[in-house]
Amino acid sequence: MDKNKLSIQSYKGTRDFYPQDMSYRNWYFSTVRHVVESYGYEEYHSPLLESYDIYAAKSGDEVANEQLYLFKDKGGRKVAIRPEMTPSVARMVAARLESLTLPLRWYSIANFLRYEKPQKGRLREHWQVNVDILGSEEIEADLEIILVITSIMRAFHADDAMFRIKIGNRKFFNDVLTDILKVKKEQVGVISKAVDKKTKLSKEKYHEWLKDIGLTGKTIEQLEEIFSLSFAEITRMMGIDSEGAQELYKLFLLLQKIGLDTYCEFDFSIIRGFDYYTGTVFEVYDTSVENRRSLFGGGRYDNLVGMFKDITISGIGFGLGDVTFQQFLELHNLIPVDIIKQKKVLIARFLDISFEHCFTLSEELRKANIANTIYLSPDHKLGKQIRFAEKKGFSVLLILGEDELKKGKVTIKHLDSRTQIQVERGLCIEKIKELL
Amino acid sequence: MDKNKLSIQSYKGTRDFYPQDMSYRNWYFSTVRHVVESYGYEEYHSPLLESYDIYAAKSGDEVANEQLYLFKDKGGRKVAIRPEMTPSVARMVAARLESLTLPLRWYSIANFLRYEKPQKGRLREHWQVNVDILGSEEIEADLEIILVITSIMRAFHADDAMFRIKIGNRKFFNDVLTDILKVKKEQVGVISKAVDKKTKLSKEKYHEWLKDIGLTGKTIEQLEEIFSLSFAEITRMMGIDSEGAQELYKLFLLLQKIGLDTYCEFDFSIIRGFDYYTGTVFEVYDTSVENRRSLFGGGRYDNLVGMFKDITISGIGFGLGDVTFQQFLELHNLIPVDIIKQKKVLIARFLDISFEHCFTLSEELRKANIANTIYLSPDHKLGKQIRFAEKKGFSVLLILGEDELKKGKVTIKHLDSRTQIQVERGLCIEKIKELL
Repeated sequence: MDKNKLSIQSYKGTRDFYPQDMSYRNWYFSTVRHVVESYGYEEYHSPLLESYDIYAAKSGDEVANEQLYLFKDKGGRKVAIRPEMTPSVARMVAARLESLTLPLRWYSIANFLRYEKPQKGRLREHWQVNVDILGSEEIEADLEIILVITSIMRAFHADDAMFRIKIGNRKFFNDVLTDILKVKKEQVGVISKAVDKKTKLSKEKYHEWLKDIGLTGKTIEQLEEIFSLSFAEITRMMGIDSEGAQELYKLFLLLQKIGLDTYCEFDFSIIRGFDYYTGTVFEVYDTSVENRRSLFGGGRYDNLVGMFKDITISGIGFGLGDVTFQQFLELHNLIPVDIIKQKKVLIARFLDISFEHCFTLSEELRKANIANTIYLSPDHKLGKQIRFAEKKGFSVLLILGEDELKKGKVTIKHLDSRTQIQVERGLCIEKIKELL
Repeated sequence: MDKNKLSIQSYKGTRDFYPQDMSYRNWYFSTVRHVVESYGYEEYHSPLLESYDIYAAKSGDEVANEQLYLFKDKGGRKVAIRPEMTPSVARMVAARLESLTLPLRWYSIANFLRYEKPQKGRLREHWQVNVDILGSEEIEADLEIILVITSIMRAFHADDAMFRIKIGNRKFFNDVLTDILKVKKEQVGVISKAVDKKTKLSKEKYHEWLKDIGLTGKTIEQLEEIFSLSFAEITRMMGIDSEGAQELYKLFLLLQKIGLDTYCEFDFSIIRGFDYYTGTVFEVYDTSVENRRSLFGGGRYDNLVGMFKDITISGIGFGLGDVTFQQFLELHNLIPVDIIKQKKVLIARFLDISFEHCFTLSEELRKANIANTIYLSPDHKLGKQIRFAEKKGFSVLLILGEDELKKGKVTIKHLDSRTQIQVERGLCIEKIKELL
């Protein structure tokens, strides 16, 4: 590399989206968009920068302290690039509480930045769909969110052999810890953090963490046992009357009624990192042996706008990123080949033909909804123009030479099949539509 | 406001996009997207953060020094939030020079941050479409870009009474200054900066600036005279052989041939702030008396990837923002009323009707491409559900009560006309489609 030249690398942990990558991303998000809009969700968007305060107050510690892109602006304000959507949407709801009719069904597609060590499935900038029902405490809202998720998975043609929605409940987790394991209430938060990180730690480190919190070896063993129990087995030990148990019971009953139970299973260990989750929590897992990991997740939060207004608004939602999910789609061969291949028309240019002839043809095609491009250099030989068309993936090359103009015709070169025909100018659009 | 609560304000100079705002933004950008794709432009996207170097090296001073959101990441790298797209796209092209077939027709829709004093038409975060032809020196590329712009304006139903494309040329500007005004070559750059800011300065300040550069009162007067001259009048003084004059001549000839000259006019004073423009430069002006201002603009740059690779790639393009252009559309009444009003269906819920009945109806509608929402709370009275539907702008409320289930029917309440009918379940979709 020339020492006087700047680096062509994108900033660490970020991606350049070339047209091919963008075709994928547009296909991906428009599939999700189509599903959520079919349930009546409305799109919103937040500013890229937010006051630091809203992250300091509410997010899990890791994001607020270590991963935040935080700086002072030229006016001395402490601002951060959004690392997630929830604090922003909370602020937006709080700002318009009087005029918004709850519940809201909202979604957004946005980028987020976190200062992470780049690794497989984790980047510093990623794009994410956020889908939420805001302002409903009904268990039917939890159900609807699970329903939307299965609809999204099925829109990508993922079947029940490919993924599993593991559902837990924060209240139930807390109750089990205090009622069965008899741990102190103030220990529950820290234990849930340890359990959340369980699969990412060695067994020794995980046990060490729990011991540091103050759990005895016996309690740790008991906790381990509970992980392997079903909902029925746990509730046999502690009853089904607690709020968390009731929520899980009702949710699974509804899921069964509408036939979604094949996609879902109870999992006591599902926690979700953020502090704000209070009820139902869930993660969608890839079931393939090569990629047995969480693809995305979400849950219920009971105090969405609490840091902005003295009012309690509960919500439930999920965030679906692009990085991990792309790996899932690739692994299961769920990305159609034709999302990238575009069917395009190129109009050739010649020195002896005035530009307006090409222009008129181009306008006619565009009016007939046929996207097309005019070759820019009139002094290039036809061979060069054909090679350009092939390299660029054009399907059709239109030739309007002196001969064609005299006869009132157009030559249509079909590059995919390497055939060509000359047709009446008036029949040109019809013929091209057949070929595309 | 409660002192213990955080501010609900968005960060200074940024906007919250509520669903209504987002409907507008989606309509706006999809209109532009449709036009540029009809010309064969492909979408790309860049990372939000870039190394500071790429801005320090190339942008106009104001953006690089005063307006940049610049900070050190936790690894000590000096990074910036992109204030514009050109340096990023240059880096991306440089990185894949070997595999990309030039010219490229690329566009992107992205947000940009600049530390500006928020004022009418200027925000700290704005969204912009960038459209470029990269790797073509042909004047036909300049023509195509002007053509795309007029197509975008016409797609918004703007006519030639509402806007005017003012076209200048940097080379021509330089030649006029050195050939006619006899200023020194090294003065040209600073003079162009002063001329670019002319309309924003008082006459005194502007003259002071030019005097500081070293221009005499007489030269300043001469310069002023030239601003009022036509292209023909200027070239009568200095000939038409210079490169800049030739480019302008050919461009206007082509524009005339395809009938676009009604939208365009020559304007000697069009400069564009950025240092990288080298040939054709243009700005699109609102012609209305209330808003006689530049809406957006662009131009040709000859050394796009020069700071990354030892190769010269020329390009031409423009950036079309959302803030100023919305004012234009509003002023000329070009925003259709129905982009915000959605036609939606709500399905009522009742305590005595099991969820799966609503669910089945909802699925049927969704399969027929009718977006719909199930009311969440089964214990709310019908009156409350109707009020909710009206507040939310639903057009149709579907009722599936005990009576309807027994008879195999559905009650369709058309909220817009306040009428209701009961139809056979099998005819329900057809009837709803009539109403929407």
